[in-house]
Amino acid sequence: MSDVPAVKAALKSQAVETPSWAYGNSGTRFKVFAQPGVPRTPQEKLDDAAQVHAFTGVAPTVALHIPWDAVEDYGALAKYAEERGLKLGAINSNVFQDDDYKLGSVTHPDPAVRRKALGHLLECVDIMDATGSRDLKLWFSDGTNYPGQDDIAARQDRLAEALSAVYGRLGEEQRMLLEYKFFEPAFYTTDVPDWGTAYAHCLKLGPKAQVCVDTGHHAPGTNIEFIVALLLREGKLGAFDFNSRFYADDDLMVGAADPFQLFRIMYEVVRGGGLTSGVAFMLDQCHNIEPKIPAIIRSVMNVQEATAKALLVDRDALATAQREGDVLGANAVLMDAYNTDVRPLLAEVREELGIAPDPMAAYRASGWAERIVAERVGGEQAGWGA
Amino acid sequence: MSDVPAVKAALKSQAVETPSWAYGNSGTRFKVFAQPGVPRTPQEKLDDAAQVHAFTGVAPTVALHIPWDAVEDYGALAKYAEERGLKLGAINSNVFQDDDYKLGSVTHPDPAVRRKALGHLLECVDIMDATGSRDLKLWFSDGTNYPGQDDIAARQDRLAEALSAVYGRLGEEQRMLLEYKFFEPAFYTTDVPDWGTAYAHCLKLGPKAQVCVDTGHHAPGTNIEFIVALLLREGKLGAFDFNSRFYADDDLMVGAADPFQLFRIMYEVVRGGGLTSGVAFMLDQCHNIEPKIPAIIRSVMNVQEATAKALLVDRDALATAQREGDVLGANAVLMDAYNTDVRPLLAEVREELGIAPDPMAAYRASGWAERIVAERVGGEQAGWGA
Amino acid sequence: MSDVPAVKAALKSQAVETPSWAYGNSGTRFKVFAQPGVPRTPQEKLDDAAQVHAFTGVAPTVALHIPWDAVEDYGALAKYAEERGLKLGAINSNVFQDDDYKLGSVTHPDPAVRRKALGHLLECVDIMDATGSRDLKLWFSDGTNYPGQDDIAARQDRLAEALSAVYGRLGEEQRMLLEYKFFEPAFYTTDVPDWGTAYAHCLKLGPKAQVCVDTGHHAPGTNIEFIVALLLREGKLGAFDFNSRFYADDDLMVGAADPFQLFRIMYEVVRGGGLTSGVAFMLDQCHNIEPKIPAIIRSVMNVQEATAKALLVDRDALATAQREGDVLGANAVLMDAYNTDVRPLLAEVREELGIAPDPMAAYRASGWAERIVAERVGGEQAGWGA
Amino acid sequence: MSDVPAVKAALKSQAVETPSWAYGNSGTRFKVFAQPGVPRTPQEKLDDAAQVHAFTGVAPTVALHIPWDAVEDYGALAKYAEERGLKLGAINSNVFQDDDYKLGSVTHPDPAVRRKALGHLLECVDIMDATGSRDLKLWFSDGTNYPGQDDIAARQDRLAEALSAVYGRLGEEQRMLLEYKFFEPAFYTTDVPDWGTAYAHCLKLGPKAQVCVDTGHHAPGTNIEFIVALLLREGKLGAFDFNSRFYADDDLMVGAADPFQLFRIMYEVVRGGGLTSGVAFMLDQCHNIEPKIPAIIRSVMNVQEATAKALLVDRDALATAQREGDVLGANAVLMDAYNTDVRPLLAEVREELGIAPDPMAAYRASGWAERIVAERVGGEQAGWGA
Repeated sequence: MSDVPAVKAALKSQAVETPSWAYGNSGTRFKVFAQPGVPRTPQEKLDDAAQVHAFTGVAPTVALHIPWDAVEDYGALAKYAEERGLKLGAINSNVFQDDDYKLGSVTHPDPAVRRKALGHLLECVDIMDATGSRDLKLWFSDGTNYPGQDDIAARQDRLAEALSAVYGRLGEEQRMLLEYKFFEPAFYTTDVPDWGTAYAHCLKLGPKAQVCVDTGHHAPGTNIEFIVALLLREGKLGAFDFNSRFYADDDLMVGAADPFQLFRIMYEVVRGGGLTSGVAFMLDQCHNIEPKIPAIIRSVMNVQEATAKALLVDRDALATAQREGDVLGANAVLMDAYNTDVRPLLAEVREELGIAPDPMAAYRASGWAERIVAERVGGEQAGWGA
Repeated sequence: MSDVPAVKAALKSQAVETPSWAYGNSGTRFKVFAQPGVPRTPQEKLDDAAQVHAFTGVAPTVALHIPWDAVEDYGALAKYAEERGLKLGAINSNVFQDDDYKLGSVTHPDPAVRRKALGHLLECVDIMDATGSRDLKLWFSDGTNYPGQDDIAARQDRLAEALSAVYGRLGEEQRMLLEYKFFEPAFYTTDVPDWGTAYAHCLKLGPKAQVCVDTGHHAPGTNIEFIVALLLREGKLGAFDFNSRFYADDDLMVGAADPFQLFRIMYEVVRGGGLTSGVAFMLDQCHNIEPKIPAIIRSVMNVQEATAKALLVDRDALATAQREGDVLGANAVLMDAYNTDVRPLLAEVREELGIAPDPMAAYRASGWAERIVAERVGGEQAGWGA
Repeated sequence: MSDVPAVKAALKSQAVETPSWAYGNSGTRFKVFAQPGVPRTPQEKLDDAAQVHAFTGVAPTVALHIPWDAVEDYGALAKYAEERGLKLGAINSNVFQDDDYKLGSVTHPDPAVRRKALGHLLECVDIMDATGSRDLKLWFSDGTNYPGQDDIAARQDRLAEALSAVYGRLGEEQRMLLEYKFFEPAFYTTDVPDWGTAYAHCLKLGPKAQVCVDTGHHAPGTNIEFIVALLLREGKLGAFDFNSRFYADDDLMVGAADPFQLFRIMYEVVRGGGLTSGVAFMLDQCHNIEPKIPAIIRSVMNVQEATAKALLVDRDALATAQREGDVLGANAVLMDAYNTDVRPLLAEVREELGIAPDPMAAYRASGWAERIVAERVGGEQAGWGA
Repeated sequence: MSDVPAVKAALKSQAVETPSWAYGNSGTRFKVFAQPGVPRTPQEKLDDAAQVHAFTGVAPTVALHIPWDAVEDYGALAKYAEERGLKLGAINSNVFQDDDYKLGSVTHPDPAVRRKALGHLLECVDIMDATGSRDLKLWFSDGTNYPGQDDIAARQDRLAEALSAVYGRLGEEQRMLLEYKFFEPAFYTTDVPDWGTAYAHCLKLGPKAQVCVDTGHHAPGTNIEFIVALLLREGKLGAFDFNSRFYADDDLMVGAADPFQLFRIMYEVVRGGGLTSGVAFMLDQCHNIEPKIPAIIRSVMNVQEATAKALLVDRDALATAQREGDVLGANAVLMDAYNTDVRPLLAEVREELGIAPDPMAAYRASGWAERIVAERVGGEQAGWGA
């Protein structure tokens, strides 16, 4: 697309959803390093998210995690968000932290535990009704650690039953996003370990069930852009959980480990119409050692840069080279876009949006970081509650 | 199953299909080490396969690879097999060795190449009609080596079109087995890289299309028995291509690298009814450095041993422990079967079948190895023709 | 070794060290599921470890972790252990849980943090003096999460400096065991990521520095027994941290994921003289969902079973087959030992040691599990303190 | 380095060695797709290499592979090269393609095979004397496919013996480069599988033995730049074999799969002084489906672009951020260089060298591709002879 105005328009219309939990503390099983200034309430998380949106211009929604963001009045929380220029985004369920869930939630061998887990999922839909959220994101830590521990196929039956109940509860405009993950915290089987499993369930459920691709949830070497292309072709790509990894589900800033992969993914999104078809672009990251707000700003910028490069691919030239079997020529067309320095273009986009061209510098200069360290004293910092 | 007669009956009824090409030379891109006595014709391959069946009692069919096993008269070849106590099994197509296929076969950007590839696949169904084979095995090396080289989604469209044409040509009792592979020989994208892709295509095609699981064709760490359980639950597990690997598609003897994994796979087969539902148990291996016939005998025995252990799992005790959430207890039930030395049981099974209890020793004593070295002099040894 | 008495003698003399922390709670970053009856003090951990030794007969030592097992009087703790038939084993240092260590400990860019970390390591040697422990186990979580975050080579310099200082403090009979780990909790670089790095440091330090092989700390596909053989050949294998994994550092029970690999490792230990050369056989596992004491008993048994099979390998027959280039024959010799059911042999060994032949059943019957649930009420359960 | 003249000078002085075999045909075990115009003789390979040097300006040497490039008179071949502006580079030995080497070469159980292999290695040093080559590159395919097949430690003894003999034969100015590889063609153990093994042998041999890092020869997820930094710190990094991979040893064009990784590697080279310390930058790639000469030109350019970016890193700013523990800041310094479009800078460098700014276009316009297709008719095309 050499049509610069169109590229800019596409970049302006892209929205990246930030996750409330990324503003709180996170860590590994070895240690959570708390950071000063971290939010203590869902409201403070929204305050921080408003900063990210203010400085990037393209992060207008915030995903919630229940119960980490549980409040009495979700309508009030939505209003709080609106007053800061934000909307509440996807509702993320949590059926992995109650003691009952040690051996599973919706796939647990005990029907009482399954009922409890399903109750939580249905409650999340209630919350969606209150917040006006479109998407229910379902990630299940369900699985087993040891061969024989439970029956693989029976767990699929139980999973299907729960998903079906939730699906039936969805409103007209609501969607269910089913996330898959290769492993962790289950270390032998995971009940939704790959896109194929998520796809098979979504297919049976119907059009309101879509697959969520977390970029850190694959086996080593997996070609993620291939999965993206396939799901788009099937009309089943609902969302991304963006982050990056060198090893496992490292949850580093998106684009930090392999910016070329992120570009290839975004190229398939552009090519498959995913920029305009309702795919949700969400971050799902853990800023264990770096300050959270600037890390999220950087992540939003990384998504933008990859998208810009993807939009700059000369698709006519690419199609010609591909048709002619010109391997090096086709690769060169793609690499030409990737090798372009798109930072000046994005600076222009930002200026046209009325914001500073360098979000990182602008945030740094704003004093927000110092302010929250000074003001957020006492109370309990938000975290995973693990 | 503590019912020993039933276990024995199941073991006697299991059939392992051996591949014609495993009797010929194979190697790596670095070197093919030819072995003396290797067959020079499809008929000589069948002669060797008859030895494997004679000494194991459970390898009555032989898969063919076209054109490596191309003959003028397939009916005559089938008769040749029958005279040696064998039947011809799956027909394996080959659309990866003509110069035209450098950039793909059924997914090639050039429609003329696609037509040629499709023509070969349809010819393979003709051969099935002649041989009486039930299964057409489709493995495509199609893919790309470099980002941008071709359009991922367009290649899926082309693949779907070819598969549909082949499906339409299948007879009432014939099946199509779609194999997936993580990578190699394509090194960036592979057009059918995982079970999800194969499943999605088979689902659209219909009941005669089934997935073939090659145990060496997965990303590192992939839980293969999970895939087996899922495909059986969906009624889409058509066949295995058995072999084993430490790294990539090493094509070692099945069970050589991870016998516990093979046991877990066979347990899911038993548990999901796969022993009696028409799943084809085929070997697909490369005996690059070891003598071929005894390696194949050993491989058949490895499948039997894993199956025997799987049949010995005390499923009532397992179900109880699983229901009670007894993690260690359930694991112990499985491990108890795995840790059992089933070689005496299999010796009994063989004696009841009227063959020697130790197939390796019996083959060694038969003199066949020396005879083929002495007799198969001159001519061109069979191989991959790579 | 067909000499059964010698095999039994070797099995009786093998000692498996259990880690104090495995008796406490552990989990993932998502959740620690507390278990009833878990110890609240180092003394209660020793009480549990005494059970493991009582029922297996081969777990006479217990590794401590400082500060998780910090006490006022280590001499008194050693005496407490002795009264229960135990000895205190390796001292494990912890320089990853203070807030100061967010960016590293001995490799931290700030010299003040490095001094603090070194101080802890030296204090651990003081503790060794008090407990009579031979081994100081050093595992560093040090590393970086993002490219550029710190200077890779400078961190090696800092690491070398700290190791040298600790080495100089070791007594005549004391050793330093340097553990390596592929990744986690650092997600880009780890300062001691592989055996080569640990070996290079130990080589420069001198004979009292040895490498510790944690069986879960390798890249996917790594051939661990090869590393074991190499380190034994170099005289640099100091210890094992046993556990098992399907994916990353899953810390499952040793032998649970790949019993054949454990057997191959133990075969190299036997072959390289590691059974009698001072190699420490330690467990380092996380029993996140299974009850801890029986899981540890099972793990000790798994090590024993693998050792027994390794001892049963007919090494003369193996050497002959290897010398003759008989690939299948040599493999068959190894597999014959692996396929042997050694449980009856180990039952005999236990009876000769004067303990029950089935440790799991005997522990279950002992009532200890119920007793600790009943008695250990109140207080704070031991865990990682993460 | 913001000193542009110094960056340019460094780029002009960098030399990338191209491998003679990359000009010939290559493929996978499934198929070698021959390409028209491919050289038939070592001389024609040098003709092609001269084109690469002419259009890039930085590829003045060519590595030979014996026996693929065996000639009667190596002095004459060196003169042939010189007349085309080239020098002969590293001599690559081949002890993996004789039938004798099925079970190994210098590690083979049979001393006669070991003697034969050693003889070849010594002959390669004779050839170095004749060609004036500095480097002997040793890659061994030696290893085993099945557990038990041979004795791991004994093979190390045999390897050490052979290396020692070769080392003793090296001239004053000659070096031995020991390459490691994770797997392939051996599928269970490889006798030099990782940098640690290569390093341990080189350390014992002495200063003329150095490690060669092939960027495709690592386990999944391995941090290659860490290894580079370590080997440079130890004075043991002798050379690179550049290529890239998504999966295994895919041998794609360097930088094609992960350009960010290549940049990180080159940053460690720059940081560790490797640009000026005699490290050899060699390509070792397989252009299975793309035309060879332009693929090699592209690869040389990819190395240059990564080097340019590495040279542009603001090392003062980086050191400051690292010292301050500014994770995001340090990362941003590195990424700033990576995100720079260095193509204009390299175009200037080329113009200052007196060559065309766009090597790909200039080669295309030269007519060489058409000429070799027209002229190189008949004869046998060069390849691996596998």
